[in-house]
Amino acid sequence: MTARQNILVMKFGGTSVADPEKIQRAADRAVAARRRGRAVAVVVSAPGDMTDELLTLARRVAAEPDDRELDQLLATGEQVGIALFAMACRARGAPAVSLTGAQAGIDAGGDHTRAQIVRIRAGKILRELQAGRIVTVAGFQGVTPGRDVATLGRGGSDLTAVALACALKTRECEIYTDVKGVYTADPRIVSEARKLDRITAAEMLELAGAGAQVMQPRSMEVAERFGVSIHVRSAFHPQPGTWIIPKEKAMLEKAFVSALALDKSEVRLNLMDLPDRPGVAAQVLAALAEARIPVDMIVQSAPARTGVNAISLMTPRAFAAKAQEALAPIARRLGARVDIRDQVAKISAVGTGFRHHPWIAAKMFAALAEHKINIHMIVASDLRISAVVDAHHGETALRALHRAYGLARKKKSR
Amino acid sequence: MTARQNILVMKFGGTSVADPEKIQRAADRAVAARRRGRAVAVVVSAPGDMTDELLTLARRVAAEPDDRELDQLLATGEQVGIALFAMACRARGAPAVSLTGAQAGIDAGGDHTRAQIVRIRAGKILRELQAGRIVTVAGFQGVTPGRDVATLGRGGSDLTAVALACALKTRECEIYTDVKGVYTADPRIVSEARKLDRITAAEMLELAGAGAQVMQPRSMEVAERFGVSIHVRSAFHPQPGTWIIPKEKAMLEKAFVSALALDKSEVRLNLMDLPDRPGVAAQVLAALAEARIPVDMIVQSAPARTGVNAISLMTPRAFAAKAQEALAPIARRLGARVDIRDQVAKISAVGTGFRHHPWIAAKMFAALAEHKINIHMIVASDLRISAVVDAHHGETALRALHRAYGLARKKKSR
Repeated sequence: MTARQNILVMKFGGTSVADPEKIQRAADRAVAARRRGRAVAVVVSAPGDMTDELLTLARRVAAEPDDRELDQLLATGEQVGIALFAMACRARGAPAVSLTGAQAGIDAGGDHTRAQIVRIRAGKILRELQAGRIVTVAGFQGVTPGRDVATLGRGGSDLTAVALACALKTRECEIYTDVKGVYTADPRIVSEARKLDRITAAEMLELAGAGAQVMQPRSMEVAERFGVSIHVRSAFHPQPGTWIIPKEKAMLEKAFVSALALDKSEVRLNLMDLPDRPGVAAQVLAALAEARIPVDMIVQSAPARTGVNAISLMTPRAFAAKAQEALAPIARRLGARVDIRDQVAKISAVGTGFRHHPWIAAKMFAALAEHKINIHMIVASDLRISAVVDAHHGETALRALHRAYGLARKKKSR
Repeated sequence: MTARQNILVMKFGGTSVADPEKIQRAADRAVAARRRGRAVAVVVSAPGDMTDELLTLARRVAAEPDDRELDQLLATGEQVGIALFAMACRARGAPAVSLTGAQAGIDAGGDHTRAQIVRIRAGKILRELQAGRIVTVAGFQGVTPGRDVATLGRGGSDLTAVALACALKTRECEIYTDVKGVYTADPRIVSEARKLDRITAAEMLELAGAGAQVMQPRSMEVAERFGVSIHVRSAFHPQPGTWIIPKEKAMLEKAFVSALALDKSEVRLNLMDLPDRPGVAAQVLAALAEARIPVDMIVQSAPARTGVNAISLMTPRAFAAKAQEALAPIARRLGARVDIRDQVAKISAVGTGFRHHPWIAAKMFAALAEHKINIHMIVASDLRISAVVDAHHGETALRALHRAYGLARKKKSR
């Protein structure tokens, strides 16, 4: 029996297996881990742009491709990835076998193109690991009770990796990607940004909500819930990356800001002249939820004049038109106006203990004021403070906050 | 219950689904057949050059890719084909569902990359047809008892289509391809070549053995055995093509030549100075069979001088080196020589009743002699006469025989 603590789950994203040379380098890592005595399960994404290319093909065949067939189509990308990865391992002298989602026993439920992993029947994977083989597992996909292929939505391979670590009862999961880890802010904007050694899964969730594109949010939730530690690291550099640790393992500390995120991909949606009576906000959010429109920073301001109210929120630019359409009937019924404001930037500070340490919020507002940056909207929780500013102020604001919170200094205590 | 005689199996080859526009045209045909009241099962190949592109990828990752992983990889080509095809049908208002080999219940056995269809558990396909859906089925693949993907070898989609027609107990199978049907000879070489309305499966088998690349040979054997009629026709033209009919349905007729084939892809292999004693030919053929080398036209000539013998045969050029290698130990042991002759052409006449009508062979030799074309080797059976000539005589020989057998005239009696 393979000692389960000895199992290592590795995940390689699309950019890490974009071409045969990169696949060979990734296989080198898996084979090296096996030589060090680890039992290695590798979750592989679709190589490079393959998923996008398949989507383009689908849209050339049908204006609105059917979701089940889209899943059948897109799942081939990961199948190509696992087969090539297993071949590369074998070419390096390591026995290896590839398994699709169905073959690996990854049961999925819910809607096509955004399915959930219901459970992983890991018997087959465990038998292959026991036989000494590297097992390459298709990310992003599972099989429904009716034996249909279902995909997990964008970034679903992260979820496959974390769920697999849970199912194999190992506490470690390596996520290989095209960045070196999680940074205090985007290093392309903030030159003194620093790579974090550790961050909690809850903070990562807030960072993802704040627009940082490192890990898929649902995978963070699962990691947090099941106590899996994730090592996010570069596929192209040997240095360690950032450990994302579940809360139970995080040291209790006083409040601090871990990292900043800047997100210019959203627009601000305002509903004005709403009647100030109970149930109005619920109607608005129900309409958005029904149309599956992602929202962030929901703010209902205090009535500007008696009996009239306003709700503001942020939504991805791609959903702006759909959101406007979803809200039109309500607005008509209530005599309200829907207004969309583009050219905004959401800037967020993520950390711990904000609720009890108002100086963190105060420092943000002071730093922005010092640079004469006007704040349109603010939302704060215990783990995140987000402010919306004009888009052209985004980078200046990010650099100002990075300095204000002293993020460039390495904190020894963490 | 769908009346089984009402089921139509259509198969579209790679060139017929090479791009989104061609897929849409192919879907038009399937949807039109459904509107005419047929229950339609469509076997789809990998679009265009996808299989070759995947093979190239595999060889860039591993010099000798593992067969199981190669199957896992190549099967994605057909999966892309069925998903896109089903989307195109749905975009035309026809309900459709795609099934991989595993989902369709196509059980395979034997070696990876050249598996056999063991059986088709057609329950799922029948249920989908009953529900009024067009079912697109991945050609070229099946699933092993261990749930691995296995592919059927080149041209395997033809076999899937014919086997599916058998399993669905329908007697008709339409094979859509890039040619208009089966011709009396290659129309690129013989300008007066004529498209045949009908030909027997047995004759098609001989034509395939003679180098004509219309249908995969194993699919002809299955069609013959189970009484399935195949309509080979163009995916791009509405006209009927050629019906390939099982023997039982073929009219009893006097001897005739149906079609000619020219094959320049083979080399002649000679084993000379073999001892003239029993068991020598068996050893030679066993060595070739073990190395899985395809052979045609095995000829053992009468001893040229006492105690010494020679065997000649034809093998595809790609296997020549492997054949020489396989025969080297025997040749050494028996003191024989192996010699390979390139630059040859095999010209064949295929038809029925040759055994009892030696004039057919006589006419071939006379026509070739008239053009001063030397014959290196002859093999004749009841259904085929093949002669090997110098490569540069191939086209002249083909045209000469087409005239000699009067193939340009439409035979009313067929």
